[in-house]
Amino acid sequence: MDNLRIDNRRNDELREVSFIPNFTNNRDGSCLVSFGNTKVLCNATFNAGHVPGFLRNSGQGWVTAEYSMLPKATNDRNQREAVKGGQTGRTLEIQRLIGRSLRAVVDMSKLGENGIIIDCDVIQADGGTRTASICGGYVVLYMCIQNALKNGIIKESPIINSVAAVSCGIVNGQILLDLKYEEDSNADVDANFIISGTGELIDIQATSEGNPFKKGELLEMLSLAEKGISEISALQQKTIESLKI
Amino acid sequence: MDNLRIDNRRNDELREVSFIPNFTNNRDGSCLVSFGNTKVLCNATFNAGHVPGFLRNSGQGWVTAEYSMLPKATNDRNQREAVKGGQTGRTLEIQRLIGRSLRAVVDMSKLGENGIIIDCDVIQADGGTRTASICGGYVVLYMCIQNALKNGIIKESPIINSVAAVSCGIVNGQILLDLKYEEDSNADVDANFIISGTGELIDIQATSEGNPFKKGELLEMLSLAEKGISEISALQQKTIESLKI
Amino acid sequence: MDNLRIDNRRNDELREVSFIPNFTNNRDGSCLVSFGNTKVLCNATFNAGHVPGFLRNSGQGWVTAEYSMLPKATNDRNQREAVKGGQTGRTLEIQRLIGRSLRAVVDMSKLGENGIIIDCDVIQADGGTRTASICGGYVVLYMCIQNALKNGIIKESPIINSVAAVSCGIVNGQILLDLKYEEDSNADVDANFIISGTGELIDIQATSEGNPFKKGELLEMLSLAEKGISEISALQQKTIESLKI
Amino acid sequence: MDNLRIDNRRNDELREVSFIPNFTNNRDGSCLVSFGNTKVLCNATFNAGHVPGFLRNSGQGWVTAEYSMLPKATNDRNQREAVKGGQTGRTLEIQRLIGRSLRAVVDMSKLGENGIIIDCDVIQADGGTRTASICGGYVVLYMCIQNALKNGIIKESPIINSVAAVSCGIVNGQILLDLKYEEDSNADVDANFIISGTGELIDIQATSEGNPFKKGELLEMLSLAEKGISEISALQQKTIESLKI
Amino acid sequence: MDNLRIDNRRNDELREVSFIPNFTNNRDGSCLVSFGNTKVLCNATFNAGHVPGFLRNSGQGWVTAEYSMLPKATNDRNQREAVKGGQTGRTLEIQRLIGRSLRAVVDMSKLGENGIIIDCDVIQADGGTRTASICGGYVVLYMCIQNALKNGIIKESPIINSVAAVSCGIVNGQILLDLKYEEDSNADVDANFIISGTGELIDIQATSEGNPFKKGELLEMLSLAEKGISEISALQQKTIESLKI
Amino acid sequence: MDNLRIDNRRNDELREVSFIPNFTNNRDGSCLVSFGNTKVLCNATFNAGHVPGFLRNSGQGWVTAEYSMLPKATNDRNQREAVKGGQTGRTLEIQRLIGRSLRAVVDMSKLGENGIIIDCDVIQADGGTRTASICGGYVVLYMCIQNALKNGIIKESPIINSVAAVSCGIVNGQILLDLKYEEDSNADVDANFIISGTGELIDIQATSEGNPFKKGELLEMLSLAEKGISEISALQQKTIESLKI
Repeated sequence: MDNLRIDNRRNDELREVSFIPNFTNNRDGSCLVSFGNTKVLCNATFNAGHVPGFLRNSGQGWVTAEYSMLPKATNDRNQREAVKGGQTGRTLEIQRLIGRSLRAVVDMSKLGENGIIIDCDVIQADGGTRTASICGGYVVLYMCIQNALKNGIIKESPIINSVAAVSCGIVNGQILLDLKYEEDSNADVDANFIISGTGELIDIQATSEGNPFKKGELLEMLSLAEKGISEISALQQKTIESLKI
Repeated sequence: MDNLRIDNRRNDELREVSFIPNFTNNRDGSCLVSFGNTKVLCNATFNAGHVPGFLRNSGQGWVTAEYSMLPKATNDRNQREAVKGGQTGRTLEIQRLIGRSLRAVVDMSKLGENGIIIDCDVIQADGGTRTASICGGYVVLYMCIQNALKNGIIKESPIINSVAAVSCGIVNGQILLDLKYEEDSNADVDANFIISGTGELIDIQATSEGNPFKKGELLEMLSLAEKGISEISALQQKTIESLKI
Repeated sequence: MDNLRIDNRRNDELREVSFIPNFTNNRDGSCLVSFGNTKVLCNATFNAGHVPGFLRNSGQGWVTAEYSMLPKATNDRNQREAVKGGQTGRTLEIQRLIGRSLRAVVDMSKLGENGIIIDCDVIQADGGTRTASICGGYVVLYMCIQNALKNGIIKESPIINSVAAVSCGIVNGQILLDLKYEEDSNADVDANFIISGTGELIDIQATSEGNPFKKGELLEMLSLAEKGISEISALQQKTIESLKI
Repeated sequence: MDNLRIDNRRNDELREVSFIPNFTNNRDGSCLVSFGNTKVLCNATFNAGHVPGFLRNSGQGWVTAEYSMLPKATNDRNQREAVKGGQTGRTLEIQRLIGRSLRAVVDMSKLGENGIIIDCDVIQADGGTRTASICGGYVVLYMCIQNALKNGIIKESPIINSVAAVSCGIVNGQILLDLKYEEDSNADVDANFIISGTGELIDIQATSEGNPFKKGELLEMLSLAEKGISEISALQQKTIESLKI
Repeated sequence: MDNLRIDNRRNDELREVSFIPNFTNNRDGSCLVSFGNTKVLCNATFNAGHVPGFLRNSGQGWVTAEYSMLPKATNDRNQREAVKGGQTGRTLEIQRLIGRSLRAVVDMSKLGENGIIIDCDVIQADGGTRTASICGGYVVLYMCIQNALKNGIIKESPIINSVAAVSCGIVNGQILLDLKYEEDSNADVDANFIISGTGELIDIQATSEGNPFKKGELLEMLSLAEKGISEISALQQKTIESLKI
Repeated sequence: MDNLRIDNRRNDELREVSFIPNFTNNRDGSCLVSFGNTKVLCNATFNAGHVPGFLRNSGQGWVTAEYSMLPKATNDRNQREAVKGGQTGRTLEIQRLIGRSLRAVVDMSKLGENGIIIDCDVIQADGGTRTASICGGYVVLYMCIQNALKNGIIKESPIINSVAAVSCGIVNGQILLDLKYEEDSNADVDANFIISGTGELIDIQATSEGNPFKKGELLEMLSLAEKGISEISALQQKTIESLKI
């Protein structure tokens, strides 16, 4: 393909991805994750001894996520959800996805009856905020566990794999990796892939916003996602290793 | 495979599916859809001249859905959402999916500036309520359009395809079609496929609830779904044709 | 009187009343009650050991009801209460009446510290939904108690009488039994009578919507109600007996 | 009957009833009504040109009421409804009754497209707050209309009758007029009668809280209510006449 | 200064201030406080053994306040907060101020683990409702403590000082004490001073609504406030002493 | 004074204050303001032609502010306000103060019928978040106005002065400037001063949290605040000038 994308990327190219750990001095783990202009501040909270009611006396822990966009994360200001009086359907759907994706890589028995909350607050939005939240969420989940191990609250790491996520889409007949906002809003198909560090599928959501799609296109998007996620996983790993020094 | 499922079905076998049109005397279209013990009452409402704000003066229409479960649709009673003070995240996620799936088969220009609401109220729940809602929702959407054509509110049918949906999952290593509740609650992977009457993909959501899955398993689930949906589409077609007589 | 009503009934004639028990497979008791085109699905829930705070350690139980109309139960769609963010004044008033009427025939000491919830969901509305809910509510309350006796949760039936309800009204100077929607919306006076199986008064509400009424008219409405309720009580009894076989 | 009641009244005797008009300097009409220790501050508001949506361009007006108890109107403090996040079912039921009772004596065509709100705020509660609210509500409704006539907003009084209300009940087998709190909380039957100044019935609600009641008892309560209301109506009339001077 | 104010007061003159204790028969303490046409009904509630969570097992008590205006306390009717669905920012700000001001004169250890709620309900508003609430709130707080002492619930009075409050402002260049509504709505600067009976400062809020102000003007307002509060304190003292007889 | 503060500051010394304009690429103006570890992201939004109802057709504009803390801005996580269902009293009180302080330096006639919203989102909290929000809020307000001038939406700058804010307090008998969290939580008196760039007073709030204070202490706090604000104003000025280049 000769034609480059709006920001001069190839179809299978990620935006510049970065992880800045310890962006705030939250001891449980903080990280600013960027995919180009999309910037999400992720913060972990370890609640020793706190689990949802259905897990009490089960010996098992739980991981949840909360997601929010600052009102001015987008060019057109969005009304603050606290002013509206509650979280929107979009927000609830996204934070359920983030929580589920992170739980997929945690052994809840090893976590013990402890709760972890991952807050993902979007500082600036340019497409792919939910996938960026999962990528940054994994980093602060890891930091949080390391801190709990260091403090002796848990004995053994419950993390069984890493997890990352990326979007793909079909825009004007092109199959693209990591859509920015202008691409996303013109896409015929919009898909999110959540994949473990060892390449297994954790969650797939592919939705036609215009024309439906074919099995071959699904597989082509999946291939792009696998390529992108192997790059993101390497950056997550590097970030985590830098913390150990 | 020698072993049959809990209700004696083969792995690739649907539960008994039925559509009872005109279950109530709602003139815009009413249908009770059953997948085994899962029973959803679907009702259409045609709001002539009513579209969301972003479509005013666009010449285009819109289709939305609302979903709810009666408190006692399940064995353990669920608190009524009106008592809780609002719709849950699960409900919002499901009704957004139903609406999006039905919009995928409607040409909004031909609908004109008119709104259609599809209410899906679950009378009894035994797994697969969202996919059943889409299947029944298509039938009442069709009835609603036929009624608007008959009354001369619209001139030409905006329906460009039919749509149906079914769940698949991986339970104890078996890949199964159309999960009932006991299967669903033990599934490692739970997937919903929304596919048009001509076999194109409209929406795919596959989620690991336990072990992650592999590309091959995704494709196998997709094959089962295609088989199931061709059967459901035929029943939808038969139901619709019975109304014309 | 020569003139018949809109649906050819005499002034003192009920619509066709039917009770379909076990309409869903809810083990605690389910019944679809119809008064002509008014159809209400009643479901019971037995909550062993759950009573409101003011009854804790009292040895007494409690019965409450919840009422809701499906959005498309009426020709003009009503907004879903979960979308509005809460139950309306009309709904609260109706479900308080249903609960109070059912409690009037239960000996709370014999129920023990157990709670019963009666859900009344209106599938189709054509006037008289609150009185139909009380009639169907009694049937599922009875089923629920029988089930608790069978399971040994309670030792003795706390039901001390049956209860039924019916509306009367004054429309164009005629005193009518069991108003359907068109009659109800033109009524000068609208009254609801809740009466026990042995003919005692449990609750009376008579409201002028236009011209006020006289003592004689009140008594005439009461006579019609007594006639109607004796017929309904007989049908309730027959339904209950059919279950024992 | 030899036995007197807790406050030395006869069974058919009202508590001391008083109306203090212009309790605040609200120009649309203000009145403090007392039935013994029950004290309700009633205030009218005339909203020229404001009617609910369903009456726009109808040439007709509307009257509504709002009811509230101060948290410490009762010995045990009640949580403020604004803190709870909304009005309770009891409040909604009461204010619907007050509004309906006042509308029964207003000719909406003569009111023109104007709205009137009657606020009933209970300063102290000792039983019968809803019936006291209707009695005081009528006085401020009258004041409000007189003020609108004086200002030329309406040409002709739309008031077609006066209205008053009183409670009756059966307590320990005695049929009593105008129950105070201790009587009300021990009553087997609790009834509210809303009757016009010319003795016609506007609304009747009779509810068994314990033992059901008989037709004869209903009629006996009605007779007591008629006696009480003729006394209250005279006081309303005297209050209104005192304002004209 | 030759020019008198709108109601013929001098710049340093309070409106007529009065305290009517036992306005209702609330045993914990009730008082109607008036500053001219501003009338606030204050009621105390003593909750033996009830403190907020953060004080449990601390041996300390707590005092909070709630504030509300009747809808028709002002000429233009305000929507009821229970109808809006919650307390406004203005209400929350005012009741936080009242509670903080009253807590400043209570020794929480001597109160023991008991809670006191001071309800301030504005019957009529003509400026200065929050300062009047603090003045009347102190009186009912005192009554409440006396009652608890009398009943032996606490052994020693926890009240360490009295507290009163008054507003000042700058209107058309004049520095004024105790603003009524018309003055308040034209003020360049609006200030509230909360001062103890022994003349110490408890809370100061001075806000420019138009032109900013200078240090000298702040001091001049403070002097007026000190003068006004010494008069109010004397009236509070006199009210309290009248109760002892 | 020999003793230094917890972070080695003198009593009259600010923490390190910095303004980072264009922290996000919001065209209407974005700035991260820091007072030591307190970090607030301020964003402006210019809504051409949008003013509150009471200003429609007045030719005047309006400025409001919204304030929020990220859940993990503090060591102990705070529940998200969108999850609680609304903004707390503390939040509403703070954002009302920020809005009022910024409006004090804007000529609303020159702004024309346009609205400006200043969002203040606390990324990290260590005391003084409301005063930091006002300081950063002024910078983005200025940027927003410059942008509107550049785009020709307004002709003349409506900004008539700059505004800054700082806290003071009395801690263990010491009068301190710019309290950090540990100082703030031990303060006997906590005060916030909002002062214009030319030294005039805009808003003063001084509250005793323990012992009350004296006139002399109020004046001493005011002197410290004047010193601090002259330093902050200089930094604001420098930030603004750096943007012009």
